[in-house]
Amino acid sequence: MSYRETALAKFLLFVEPGPLTLVTTFDGKKNNVMTISWVMPMDFDGGLVMATGPWNHSYEALVKRKECVVCIPAQDMLETAVKIGDVSGAECDKFALFHLRTLPAKTVQAPLLAGCQACLECEVTDVLARRGLLLLRVKRLVTDKSKAKGRLWHARGDGTFTLDGASRNLRRLMKDKLPPGV
Amino acid sequence: MSYRETALAKFLLFVEPGPLTLVTTFDGKKNNVMTISWVMPMDFDGGLVMATGPWNHSYEALVKRKECVVCIPAQDMLETAVKIGDVSGAECDKFALFHLRTLPAKTVQAPLLAGCQACLECEVTDVLARRGLLLLRVKRLVTDKSKAKGRLWHARGDGTFTLDGASRNLRRLMKDKLPPGV
Repeated sequence: MSYRETALAKFLLFVEPGPLTLVTTFDGKKNNVMTISWVMPMDFDGGLVMATGPWNHSYEALVKRKECVVCIPAQDMLETAVKIGDVSGAECDKFALFHLRTLPAKTVQAPLLAGCQACLECEVTDVLARRGLLLLRVKRLVTDKSKAKGRLWHARGDGTFTLDGASRNLRRLMKDKLPPGV
Repeated sequence: MSYRETALAKFLLFVEPGPLTLVTTFDGKKNNVMTISWVMPMDFDGGLVMATGPWNHSYEALVKRKECVVCIPAQDMLETAVKIGDVSGAECDKFALFHLRTLPAKTVQAPLLAGCQACLECEVTDVLARRGLLLLRVKRLVTDKSKAKGRLWHARGDGTFTLDGASRNLRRLMKDKLPPGV
């Protein structure tokens, strides 16, 4: 594993496609991680919106510490990701249970998860508690070039998951619509 | 094309994976359609969040008429979808330009787009203008079984797009986490 600093503008490549993500938090005492696919970009400057609430054990840490890391699992991590999503950090140490290695982040206290395609260190900028939405801002992006090949897992919502297959380049049709740096 | 009424709970299958979508609106005089991938579920009861703002011509109709249809393009519609996203309804009639057929929706005045995998008739329940977010609620779902095979297109954010490839069924690992009806 070798995470490298990556230009922030490239955050879109990892969240725009709507992949399954693993979100780490630190509650002041211990780390936790949850599986969530309800995360998406809301602007071109690192803004993300996440749909979650108190029913997720991670929520309290997200709201109190105002930070997290959104990690994009590598292609071989699907089964682990689903298992992470099936237990609560209130009842176990998921890092020990699933043999997850962490690395220190730079801009937040929540950890990077080792072995992912990318990790997005994020600040929680707004808590829209009544709506069940958190607004995040990516502060730092690290990627592992050997794993970040554009094959992401997507939850279907019914317990099945799809992996990216064929890709098409239609940049020629998008003219001036692409943000700089991607 | 043959859209059929589909149980609302199945809306997740079409939006949870984070696909490219085509959103139709009716402004009181004419229809419009925009391409957007910043739409995702925010609950299991048909709640969606969409990131958009006045920079999209469709925004005014969304905010004024408080309704739209979120359409999931069929596999063969990628190039059309990207072209739809590259022009503004302020300057042309996209339906004429791209030979798009529409069908009447039942619960909203915005039209269904023919030839899609699914169309989600939606009410705009909240406008978080300062955040650039709209909250939607799916009121009716129709799907075309012959096109809805689970192969969705995902925008990468850089003018490239990926199509769903391999899929895996991990329902056995998710125990009681799945909402009823999917």
